[in-house]
Amino acid sequence: MHTHNWIIDYRSPNRANMYRVKEIIVSTSSRYQEILIAETVDYGRGLFLDGIPQSSALDEHIYHESLIHPALISHDNPTNVFIGGGGEGSVLREVLKHNTVKKVLMVDIDEDLVNLSKKYLNNWHQGTFDDERVHIINEDARKYLATSQEMFDCIIIDMTDPLQESPSTPLFTHEFFTLAKTCLNPGGIFAMQAETTNFGEHVPHISIIKTLQQTFHYVIPYQTWIPFYCLSWGFIIASDQSLKERLNPDSILQILQQRNCLNLKFYDAETHAHMFSRPKYLRDALDDPHTGMIIRDDHLLIVE
Amino acid sequence: MHTHNWIIDYRSPNRANMYRVKEIIVSTSSRYQEILIAETVDYGRGLFLDGIPQSSALDEHIYHESLIHPALISHDNPTNVFIGGGGEGSVLREVLKHNTVKKVLMVDIDEDLVNLSKKYLNNWHQGTFDDERVHIINEDARKYLATSQEMFDCIIIDMTDPLQESPSTPLFTHEFFTLAKTCLNPGGIFAMQAETTNFGEHVPHISIIKTLQQTFHYVIPYQTWIPFYCLSWGFIIASDQSLKERLNPDSILQILQQRNCLNLKFYDAETHAHMFSRPKYLRDALDDPHTGMIIRDDHLLIVE
Amino acid sequence: MHTHNWIIDYRSPNRANMYRVKEIIVSTSSRYQEILIAETVDYGRGLFLDGIPQSSALDEHIYHESLIHPALISHDNPTNVFIGGGGEGSVLREVLKHNTVKKVLMVDIDEDLVNLSKKYLNNWHQGTFDDERVHIINEDARKYLATSQEMFDCIIIDMTDPLQESPSTPLFTHEFFTLAKTCLNPGGIFAMQAETTNFGEHVPHISIIKTLQQTFHYVIPYQTWIPFYCLSWGFIIASDQSLKERLNPDSILQILQQRNCLNLKFYDAETHAHMFSRPKYLRDALDDPHTGMIIRDDHLLIVE
Amino acid sequence: MHTHNWIIDYRSPNRANMYRVKEIIVSTSSRYQEILIAETVDYGRGLFLDGIPQSSALDEHIYHESLIHPALISHDNPTNVFIGGGGEGSVLREVLKHNTVKKVLMVDIDEDLVNLSKKYLNNWHQGTFDDERVHIINEDARKYLATSQEMFDCIIIDMTDPLQESPSTPLFTHEFFTLAKTCLNPGGIFAMQAETTNFGEHVPHISIIKTLQQTFHYVIPYQTWIPFYCLSWGFIIASDQSLKERLNPDSILQILQQRNCLNLKFYDAETHAHMFSRPKYLRDALDDPHTGMIIRDDHLLIVE
Repeated sequence: MHTHNWIIDYRSPNRANMYRVKEIIVSTSSRYQEILIAETVDYGRGLFLDGIPQSSALDEHIYHESLIHPALISHDNPTNVFIGGGGEGSVLREVLKHNTVKKVLMVDIDEDLVNLSKKYLNNWHQGTFDDERVHIINEDARKYLATSQEMFDCIIIDMTDPLQESPSTPLFTHEFFTLAKTCLNPGGIFAMQAETTNFGEHVPHISIIKTLQQTFHYVIPYQTWIPFYCLSWGFIIASDQSLKERLNPDSILQILQQRNCLNLKFYDAETHAHMFSRPKYLRDALDDPHTGMIIRDDHLLIVE
Repeated sequence: MHTHNWIIDYRSPNRANMYRVKEIIVSTSSRYQEILIAETVDYGRGLFLDGIPQSSALDEHIYHESLIHPALISHDNPTNVFIGGGGEGSVLREVLKHNTVKKVLMVDIDEDLVNLSKKYLNNWHQGTFDDERVHIINEDARKYLATSQEMFDCIIIDMTDPLQESPSTPLFTHEFFTLAKTCLNPGGIFAMQAETTNFGEHVPHISIIKTLQQTFHYVIPYQTWIPFYCLSWGFIIASDQSLKERLNPDSILQILQQRNCLNLKFYDAETHAHMFSRPKYLRDALDDPHTGMIIRDDHLLIVE
Repeated sequence: MHTHNWIIDYRSPNRANMYRVKEIIVSTSSRYQEILIAETVDYGRGLFLDGIPQSSALDEHIYHESLIHPALISHDNPTNVFIGGGGEGSVLREVLKHNTVKKVLMVDIDEDLVNLSKKYLNNWHQGTFDDERVHIINEDARKYLATSQEMFDCIIIDMTDPLQESPSTPLFTHEFFTLAKTCLNPGGIFAMQAETTNFGEHVPHISIIKTLQQTFHYVIPYQTWIPFYCLSWGFIIASDQSLKERLNPDSILQILQQRNCLNLKFYDAETHAHMFSRPKYLRDALDDPHTGMIIRDDHLLIVE
Repeated sequence: MHTHNWIIDYRSPNRANMYRVKEIIVSTSSRYQEILIAETVDYGRGLFLDGIPQSSALDEHIYHESLIHPALISHDNPTNVFIGGGGEGSVLREVLKHNTVKKVLMVDIDEDLVNLSKKYLNNWHQGTFDDERVHIINEDARKYLATSQEMFDCIIIDMTDPLQESPSTPLFTHEFFTLAKTCLNPGGIFAMQAETTNFGEHVPHISIIKTLQQTFHYVIPYQTWIPFYCLSWGFIIASDQSLKERLNPDSILQILQQRNCLNLKFYDAETHAHMFSRPKYLRDALDDPHTGMIIRDDHLLIVE
């Protein structure tokens, strides 16, 4: 029995992806966004925010393992981790796999989303919201960092797309990156999702890299393909210390073992090579001074 | 001014990609397939066969460079090349960039498609149909190889998906791969497109690898992401000689230079590493004896 | 703020209507059907069963006034009314507007639908489920009539489409119509929804008329246009007594006034003329012995 | 074999109708509009202008018989007929069925549309473009009437929707109606298509009626349902003489016979009653002084 209910994600006025839905689990609006949790036929349960696919039961591990493990491996002893966003709880789940981690502070602006995730996205968070190392604050991540005195080993920003009115938009600017750096301990790592790397749609991704390069000495972009998004997707690690030594195939395996961080489904040394070896057009665009822009509070990156 | 004309590619009964069309250039049926050439808004001109996106002006170079250059680099002196399918002419275009090539025989079953490509896909073939090294025959590629006495250095099969009634379906079997091998000179290379590698839809790709492994000593799969398909896509090189030496980053650059094969937009040594380092799930699936099947004439691979 | 959630009602494999949804109110499956109550943007709240639009806040009065008032006007003193189906409660609401009615028995097979309607479709039923004249039984209407000894002045069947597996399908047969007639008091009226009258899709409607003509002396079809369905829709009144006298423009107004049945939004004498004057193709099809069939338990009408 | 090519007609941002297409016959842009002639699966060949369905092989007779015959019957001897628009040729076809007609002048602004119709819409025009009574001019109908000295018995305006930039928009104004009246012989009839009468979308239709009432003593709206549009559709006849006598059921049949105007598929006396008896909401809206507006050159009606 198939419903006639579809999510249509218009990637542009001229292109869309259609997802057939078996059952709507939650359809509501929080103060910040429309939240839809639906049982899709092909991807299983899926989370859509403002109509945009965020993660699905089928492949959310690809996105979340890609966002977290390169960042945590880049640090030699990540103890105190800050997460901005990450409402589903999967970022928590992956961070806590590293046995060095003693404290995780997750700041997600949307309390409704966090509560709905706790209730309906068990396969995402897998109970980690209740881990005693975890602290949740529902506030704007930028505002929090601007006033907090706490310092972190890793700051991981898992924000939604920078839409016109989104609270995520100020998290893509030079001013925010500079603020985040002041909250990092020496040797600290900043990591974030960095928008699509699809050929022809990759300029925002390039802009994010170039903006981070204003703040951090080492900015390393990478990417993989997320089936649920129907898009290739970018991520970035940034730091003031070179990461090359830690991010080579041999050390990746060794570090994961040392940290007892096993049972990953997507990420390992060869997957790492797949992600960090980037197609020519992304490198060319980064080398081209006319591609992309420096994103600032008075010159925001807005997608669609 | 935007039309209300859309191509909807139903990847399954439960999922679809919508492409808005500015203008239909050709909409016809040949003896073998429906042929649609349309000016899409987001991807420029696009070719759809039986409603399935084949290639677009925006990104056809990604698919075609990925299919051709690893195969031709794998051979130390590719002189005589066989192409099965490849109606748009882009395979020709890429093969002819290697200055070792003296003869290309292209066997595409669909004369109508070839003629429409000549007329409407100039940016694809770029006049290479008229190159004096090129010979075109409109016949079934498998039938041709079964009766021809000619031997080739490279056999490249660029076929459509193995649908129920498609003439491409017999080109995915053990019997065909074995036939193709008998038409290769010593040191010859067999290469083909190998269906999607999307997580959750990758089993046909695994079946193709496993089937090729019955025939060739060395079978090397790789993949990248094709925006127009909204899918990651697999390719395979197969040979009876080891290809490792030629396919390392240093030699790739050197060979391309020796052959004066420059101005590639997608492929180079780092792109090669991106494509040939494969995500863990694809390697796990290949290692799993219960995933996939050996494709035979009496046990065909049919997608969708 | 607009969601990306759409209901797509495929009227055939080649045609569909898309409704954008603001919020899903209920999405569940009862023992008999998928039930979806959604807040659409253009039609307000809407009920969809098995993905098929049933009624919307915007225009449900058109359907329900059309189904009820011609039938009740046709009877000179409708006291005891049977409703088969009618889960939303709008049929109740319209029947109870006639002050002659002393008892309404509503037999709807789907208790879940009735309960959800009570909770979420207040503008439909307007509290009439609680009227002391109303009795609700959740059972198959045909089974109920087959075993009940009760006699009715009007029998109104408001069933869903006769889909392959639907409990509505046996309510479209000669055997059922014959059974229903045995439960009518002398001068009793049988009324039902009678599928689309859209040109080119009207044959099932014709079959229903012809089947009723096997049982009743007078069978009067009529139709109007339901915006929410994107279709013109048929209804039928059947009786063994001539209805002509009561259904002329002058008497319609008089009867409505006598019964204090005012404040109708759609139905009056001129609307009646609009509905009961039928386009030529419907009359031609009814006159054509080769159009349509007699629907029997062993020769069911199945749509789609 | 079914293509994946669909026309999607977005009636609003929140609602759309999807038509699957077997083959695109013509897809081009004239100076005035996008012209698409497509073979749809469910409706046969169809004409779409600016993406909006205009007429289909299945049911164009419903629209065109409805537009023409009430108008021509309203005149006691229509000899000289003016058609504004009507590019498909079906208006011609219906007008010429009245044997009183000696001259038809058709003024359609879009020569490309007329030529494509001649070539690809034979079942529409049925050769009537070549009838010796017919004169075609490709010019703006309003401009033509403003400068011409010719007088007509009937003026029939079959224009497209009044979109923002459409040349049809000035044909919906008081100024145009007043101009048209000056080109009518005594007893002349003005007729036009008058936009949808769908409940909830009927205000533009009401505005057109009210605007015509500023110019003509008798303004008679009517409506029927066009399957291809998925909408009920309005038409209007206007005149300075009463039409009641001629438009009663008895005289309709008699006039059609006198004029040898037979073989109509949709229109006859009972269909006339169906169309001219109008649902209550349309009459209420017309009676309501707050519904609709007087359309003027400086206060245009724009739909969508």
